Amino acid sequence: MELEIVTVGTELLLGFTLDSNAADIARALAAVGARVTRRVTVGDDERAIRDAVAGSLRHTKLAVVTGGLGPTKDDVTKTAVARLFGAPLELDEAYLGALTRRFARFRRAPMPLSNRSQAEFPRGATRIPNARGTAPGLILQGPLGTAVLLPGVPAEMRQMLGDHVVPFIEGLMSREGHRGWPIRSHTLRTTGVTESGLADLLAGLEPGLEGVSLAYLPGWEGVDLRLTAQVADRGEGEGEGDGDGPLLRAAARIQDAIGERYYGPGEVDLAEVVLAGLRARGWRLAVAESCTGGMVGSRLTAIPGASDVFVGGIIAYANDSKARDLGVPPVVLAAEGAVSEVVALAMAEGVAKRFHTESAIAVTGVAGPSGGTPEKPVGTVVVAARALERSVVRTLHLPGSRQEVRSRSTQAALDLLRLLLARS
Amino acid sequence: MELEIVTVGTELLLGFTLDSNAADIARALAAVGARVTRRVTVGDDERAIRDAVAGSLRHTKLAVVTGGLGPTKDDVTKTAVARLFGAPLELDEAYLGALTRRFARFRRAPMPLSNRSQAEFPRGATRIPNARGTAPGLILQGPLGTAVLLPGVPAEMRQMLGDHVVPFIEGLMSREGHRGWPIRSHTLRTTGVTESGLADLLAGLEPGLEGVSLAYLPGWEGVDLRLTAQVADRGEGEGEGDGDGPLLRAAARIQDAIGERYYGPGEVDLAEVVLAGLRARGWRLAVAESCTGGMVGSRLTAIPGASDVFVGGIIAYANDSKARDLGVPPVVLAAEGAVSEVVALAMAEGVAKRFHTESAIAVTGVAGPSGGTPEKPVGTVVVAARALERSVVRTLHLPGSRQEVRSRSTQAALDLLRLLLARS
Repeated sequence: MELEIVTVGTELLLGFTLDSNAADIARALAAVGARVTRRVTVGDDERAIRDAVAGSLRHTKLAVVTGGLGPTKDDVTKTAVARLFGAPLELDEAYLGALTRRFARFRRAPMPLSNRSQAEFPRGATRIPNARGTAPGLILQGPLGTAVLLPGVPAEMRQMLGDHVVPFIEGLMSREGHRGWPIRSHTLRTTGVTESGLADLLAGLEPGLEGVSLAYLPGWEGVDLRLTAQVADRGEGEGEGDGDGPLLRAAARIQDAIGERYYGPGEVDLAEVVLAGLRARGWRLAVAESCTGGMVGSRLTAIPGASDVFVGGIIAYANDSKARDLGVPPVVLAAEGAVSEVVALAMAEGVAKRFHTESAIAVTGVAGPSGGTPEKPVGTVVVAARALERSVVRTLHLPGSRQEVRSRSTQAALDLLRLLLARS
Repeated sequence: MELEIVTVGTELLLGFTLDSNAADIARALAAVGARVTRRVTVGDDERAIRDAVAGSLRHTKLAVVTGGLGPTKDDVTKTAVARLFGAPLELDEAYLGALTRRFARFRRAPMPLSNRSQAEFPRGATRIPNARGTAPGLILQGPLGTAVLLPGVPAEMRQMLGDHVVPFIEGLMSREGHRGWPIRSHTLRTTGVTESGLADLLAGLEPGLEGVSLAYLPGWEGVDLRLTAQVADRGEGEGEGDGDGPLLRAAARIQDAIGERYYGPGEVDLAEVVLAGLRARGWRLAVAESCTGGMVGSRLTAIPGASDVFVGGIIAYANDSKARDLGVPPVVLAAEGAVSEVVALAMAEGVAKRFHTESAIAVTGVAGPSGGTPEKPVGTVVVAARALERSVVRTLHLPGSRQEVRSRSTQAALDLLRLLLARS
């Protein structure tokens, strides 16, 4: 089953808005075996919309269209597609009544006449309920094919996509006898190793991946490995996920080859892995942050339920605080400098003692753009981790902007504690 | 001058990658008066690429194409467009030599034969230097029109766009006698006021905006107002930005109407505004954070040069720390609860005293998803700000996810201090 996506909006064309809807639709439909073969974006222009939808239907007989369904005069998608299908717009009196009452309740004012067009629907179109907004989606079917119209507001679009559009297209596929070859993917997250380092670890493995394709996705926080496979549809009597065999086997082989640089599947956050490791031991965690200024604490507390492990920390941005709140001896600060392994270790020890925790993380460094010296240039960062009485420390030389250095430092500090736990 | 964009990549079609290139191109070209009228995305398929570029050239005679210029067998854009223009690919021996030497130097291995195709270029094509990568861009011109091919790697694409493509298209416009009507925009940032609250403040203003259009862009951290105008090209002898008159007049009128809810133009961060306000007074700042867990500190230290104002803070996630490190009396914590105005005020006072700062920010709240009670449901957050001996406190009831509550809390806390400074 092939389809095309048409996204409508002058904002998209001008580049003020990124087109997340098209990506969401493509992923959701690929997962059930429907393949997007082309995507077209046009402005809020009736003629352009009609031409784009007509073109897509010529190619694939199925078009999913987002945007331009609202009440303003810019919103012309419904009119454009209704004309294309030769379906006149008809007023739904009951819907108009409900709309008018709803408007009066929320806005405490009579509904403007312009909103009346929201109660007009193309003859014969099926409506898709919108749980998060007012404009329903529409499905038009005719000799040209099938057009599914969805609103452009991402939260509304996503809910309607999952609740109604995916099941509708699955039904269409089964009625038309399309063989489903869903695209499945599985992501392995790594950190502390470069893309080429991973390629070396995986050298020789790729030929044995049974048609599973492997993509390297490098980011500030590490390299994700995305495995993608087209899997055969499950037949009768087969168990859940049987078709995923090659994908899961490939993931297991790759995970073996990567070793401890792998920290979790899919969208798992490293902070979550660290918290889980500590929770399993019944340990608590405190942080001492200089150049990251709270970013490590923020990452940890982004995870729901962090409070049974994470108790708090010291943002010791100025050196005063490193001495006063963390007990780093001023003579050590003066002799070694704030960005040094001995200071990072003392920060971790100091915060663990102050907060009475079994574990601690500390970060101190030069995030830039200024503050670098010949001995300690911008990007020099020292991270330390502590678990019970054992401590580890690493000096990093990180590339990139201030934000990149801070993000990489935060990830490296979390990873140091993860590895300390894994090895102990 | 109108053009279409063709983006190439199966990753884009599958929705694994967001199409930031198309948005970057559209914005850069709109700024010089060239308007993108349609965008098409196709996979790494020679036929689909050729059809898409041919279609775009039929519409606008100018197509900017990104992606598919690399060395792998998936990269077929050059071949597809060369065929469309009837331009045979020719090997550039000198380029091949340089490529081979470069490969040997960086990879310490002989270059694979497959990389040889990188040294083949369509006859008559102009090459666009790539300062950040190996694949040069290409410009093909012929009876069909002009096609500009750029690599898909965003950093490479952006640099080539600014350095070469925008000037090339400006030259094309001037040679072809196109009147430039550049689209300019100006953004006003607001926080602490809803979209409909802003609409009320601006009611009656819109008719007088001299053709400047106004878009409301709500986000977790406030509502940005984007003003957009098509401005006439500057004639000879006019000063810089003369054509921006209506845009700047509209921005000034709107800024007046919004009052203190406006905190800065364009991409300025609220943390930057707060730091500047404190810097001007020679004051320093410390933070005391509970539910935000370091996010306020992280926002502040993201700003280069924060260290002359921001000295640090306490992440008092557990109640122990609120008492021990911030001096909040345990009896007050017990009686009022950690999420209360008296505790937030005590946290701000405590951190200012500990860090010897003239100003402070404190946040305590229930970020969810658990931890809510009937009296203090999820989303209840108290923020406090302190400047010298004056303190202000506000209780907020915030919607949304844990991340949304935390982001909104951080912004509200920063804004409270901004307003305290502005009013004193």
